[in-house]
Amino acid sequence: MGEPTAQDAAFLERAVAEAQRGASEGGVPVGSVLVVDGRVVGAGRNRSMQLGSVIRHAETDALENAGLLPAEAYRRATLYTTLSPCCMCAGAILWYRIGRVVVGDSQTFRGAETLLEGHGVELVRLESAICGDLLTAFIERHREHWNAIAFGADPCG
Amino acid sequence: MGEPTAQDAAFLERAVAEAQRGASEGGVPVGSVLVVDGRVVGAGRNRSMQLGSVIRHAETDALENAGLLPAEAYRRATLYTTLSPCCMCAGAILWYRIGRVVVGDSQTFRGAETLLEGHGVELVRLESAICGDLLTAFIERHREHWNAIAFGADPCG
Repeated sequence: MGEPTAQDAAFLERAVAEAQRGASEGGVPVGSVLVVDGRVVGAGRNRSMQLGSVIRHAETDALENAGLLPAEAYRRATLYTTLSPCCMCAGAILWYRIGRVVVGDSQTFRGAETLLEGHGVELVRLESAICGDLLTAFIERHREHWNAIAFGADPCG
Repeated sequence: MGEPTAQDAAFLERAVAEAQRGASEGGVPVGSVLVVDGRVVGAGRNRSMQLGSVIRHAETDALENAGLLPAEAYRRATLYTTLSPCCMCAGAILWYRIGRVVVGDSQTFRGAETLLEGHGVELVRLESAICGDLLTAFIERHREHWNAIAFGADPCG
């Protein structure tokens, strides 16, 4: 487990804003921003419901919106996400060699944190109540959809 | 390592056709099909160059084109891919609990096969010359792009 920096809470707020935007669209309220050298280079939200997508989770949406960066930029990057990343998103984080991940909520759903830390990614958990509350409210309203996309425990958890 | 079935070569050919389509578009020639109960339910190709995408690898493109399937369908599915899956695609395979993966070429690039097999996915390597030849020809023409997207060895390899 890594230690939070002074900037982490503010960047997580940007990810929360993305999650709230997702919620306002009726989607799964998870948001993410990719930060390089103190600047947001990509922001995204889970758009599985909005786009009928199986690969547009918040983290992959943020990566996609950032576009292809130089290898060194990924290594210096921090990915902020309101929810512990599933193993697809963890695989993307590892593939692009993102060095640091800040997670808002690891309680409502615990993703592939073991996989990330086992590959040397610095993981910071902020345990932000608003991140968990947004998702819990969604799950209560859309339990069937949540079960169809989350399948229970993360296979790489 | 699993054993190939009588249908595997024919479905891999469908993935090769996708790779060739990608090559004809000037893209990275990797193709994939998702097969459930003997039927192709999604086909895709690496479209990183065509769409400027960092998440549209062949396997994720095939999954996206298939749309969200019932959990049991993923479990019965076989994903065919002309190239050993990178750890982002392996994460997607694990996330959706796809039970079986047939790989055309594991020589030109060896992806996250250890991660897949370590999580109980049946992996079959067909070592198809055409799969490797397509990619080798691309790498020779576009070495800079290949290095920018593949970064060398797979971090979960």
